[in-house]
Amino acid sequence: MSDSHFFEVLATDGSTRRARLRLSHGAVETPVFMPVGTYGAVKAMAPTELAALGTQILLGNTYHLYLRPGLDTLTAFSGLHRFMSWDRPILTDSGGFQVFSLGALKELTDEGVVFRSHLDGDLVKLTPEVAAHAQQVIGSDIAMVLDECIALPAEDAAVARAVRRSAAWARRFLDVPRREGQRVFGIVQGGTSTAWRKESLGLTLELPIDGVAIGGLSVGEPLEAMLGVLEGLAPDLPKDRPRYLMGVGTPRDLLEAVRRGIDMFDCVLPTRNGRNGSVFTNEGTINLRNALHRDADLPVQVGCECPCCREFSRGYLRHLFQTKEILGCRLATSHNLHYYHRLMSDIRESLDRGEFEAYYRRKQPILAAAYPDRPLIGDQE
Amino acid sequence: MSDSHFFEVLATDGSTRRARLRLSHGAVETPVFMPVGTYGAVKAMAPTELAALGTQILLGNTYHLYLRPGLDTLTAFSGLHRFMSWDRPILTDSGGFQVFSLGALKELTDEGVVFRSHLDGDLVKLTPEVAAHAQQVIGSDIAMVLDECIALPAEDAAVARAVRRSAAWARRFLDVPRREGQRVFGIVQGGTSTAWRKESLGLTLELPIDGVAIGGLSVGEPLEAMLGVLEGLAPDLPKDRPRYLMGVGTPRDLLEAVRRGIDMFDCVLPTRNGRNGSVFTNEGTINLRNALHRDADLPVQVGCECPCCREFSRGYLRHLFQTKEILGCRLATSHNLHYYHRLMSDIRESLDRGEFEAYYRRKQPILAAAYPDRPLIGDQE
Repeated sequence: MSDSHFFEVLATDGSTRRARLRLSHGAVETPVFMPVGTYGAVKAMAPTELAALGTQILLGNTYHLYLRPGLDTLTAFSGLHRFMSWDRPILTDSGGFQVFSLGALKELTDEGVVFRSHLDGDLVKLTPEVAAHAQQVIGSDIAMVLDECIALPAEDAAVARAVRRSAAWARRFLDVPRREGQRVFGIVQGGTSTAWRKESLGLTLELPIDGVAIGGLSVGEPLEAMLGVLEGLAPDLPKDRPRYLMGVGTPRDLLEAVRRGIDMFDCVLPTRNGRNGSVFTNEGTINLRNALHRDADLPVQVGCECPCCREFSRGYLRHLFQTKEILGCRLATSHNLHYYHRLMSDIRESLDRGEFEAYYRRKQPILAAAYPDRPLIGDQE
Repeated sequence: MSDSHFFEVLATDGSTRRARLRLSHGAVETPVFMPVGTYGAVKAMAPTELAALGTQILLGNTYHLYLRPGLDTLTAFSGLHRFMSWDRPILTDSGGFQVFSLGALKELTDEGVVFRSHLDGDLVKLTPEVAAHAQQVIGSDIAMVLDECIALPAEDAAVARAVRRSAAWARRFLDVPRREGQRVFGIVQGGTSTAWRKESLGLTLELPIDGVAIGGLSVGEPLEAMLGVLEGLAPDLPKDRPRYLMGVGTPRDLLEAVRRGIDMFDCVLPTRNGRNGSVFTNEGTINLRNALHRDADLPVQVGCECPCCREFSRGYLRHLFQTKEILGCRLATSHNLHYYHRLMSDIRESLDRGEFEAYYRRKQPILAAAYPDRPLIGDQE
């Protein structure tokens, strides 16, 4: 649904867009990175800290929240915002990706999926209607339609079935009443095939959606394959609605995808890596557990203004990971989220100044050298 | 060493004292509770949060810090303060209690102890000289002498040997050069026997110590036995030096011990309980894991001004513990430390107003009902 109040493009540079999303819980400046808050908490972090780090919008996992705390509790708290004490926007996925990727799938029909809960082994049914209702209860600012995710490579017939079934599920999803002000994004699937991607996008754009998400990438394919999909879709992507690349990616991925017209990202990398002692810098990731940091009296990144780098040394961080102190996870996560948010705010500022291309030319070789590989990210935070 | 600049008594009420300690890293208002920062971090907490909660002084465990990060690293960082980014005072224990209580003891002679490291199985020697040197490197504001801790009940001959050996160790400890401005406390042992306690105190007071610690309590004895020791020692305790009751205790223990002239406390209860989902209130501890809190939209303690109670509900906290989210440990620890610090600041204010006895009479029945039992606390955080 085109709506210039909801989505306002402020500047462009080639395919790159600088825009503003206006949501029930406030405005979001794009391009934007969304930290993952699986169970109603970004792991190790407090909401006030996220806001201080520049987090504008969080991602919540419907699959996880549906199982714990469950919809009864979320109803008792009038939704996730008040439950977790976060007053800025939230985007929720539909829960489908987890069902398909966690190996929990028991039955797949045109009606929906049945999965086995990883908590108690109970069989749970997830349909487009259930996914819509769950996100209505959660009260996210942006809900995602339920889609069928298939493992790649796949037969053409399987891709075709998934693309068409996802479109039918999206239509049913959109027929469910939503919470007032809630926006719904469609999801484009189709693997790395431009033809199937275009087919899926066409079916998606027939629906009354507020934004377009591109799913099923960052699942192990080379960067070039991902960028090929984005470039193939670019001419057909609506200019008046936000574009969200799901589950992506490394700092380099983000820069390249922004240059191909993407506005929104989420990824577990900064938080999951942080908890494992791996921190992002312009020279690549640093493993803080490494003994070489033992007596290192310098911050993770010299000049970084995050709460971790302002106060603590690599040597102390290494000690915290050695002794399994929670503070280590906290500080490394803070640094990583700051790194991601700073990258996006630098991109936004370069667009505001009309200098994105110059920024890209300066930054691209740095990030290409720092992040030559794409880790298999998965979805489990 | 009597020194009114170091220790200034501001008010008294019966045996209870309101005083001020002036240490290398600043002043400490007593009576005071010291959170335990075993490995150079109060578990789950950041230094700035501790300061905001009202932590004036931390306890560090020499045994743990000696093994990790070790004295080489602490030397490289000029001590623990800069290593952990904490600029307020630190008190360190001597490491002895851990050797005796962790079952690591391999050899005990007049020279010192040999213990087996719980990390790599290496044999490590701890003597009064090593304990003094380690605390010099750590750079604590207050160091504790090395003492022999014995399991109770014990034969009279064993108690006698431990009391005399501890005094000899303390003397050797005090002969080691210390960091400029560092204070050293002696430790009174002797179990629940008033006679042995008096003997130990007498030997301790022969030494040039800056303060008197009472060790070996809160190890399972009834409250009355502990208070009996304090009352037995009271007439002989120096009025011009601080008194520190090691490893104690519940909120009720603190109130009763303050009334018997104690100025300083440390205990793992608020932090360890917090990580297990157990929070302190004026109605006793609450187990946040309990299903009855599932939909509870009220704070841990109504009216509490801690960061946890201001923002979060019991229902959300229960969810965080259910899903093993680190934020749960953080928030419960924050609340518990706030509860302990608030108790002590209330006591200090009542002394400042000359109303401690009225405060005690009002508070004692509440805490006696809330904390009828004394948990076996131990020393391991």
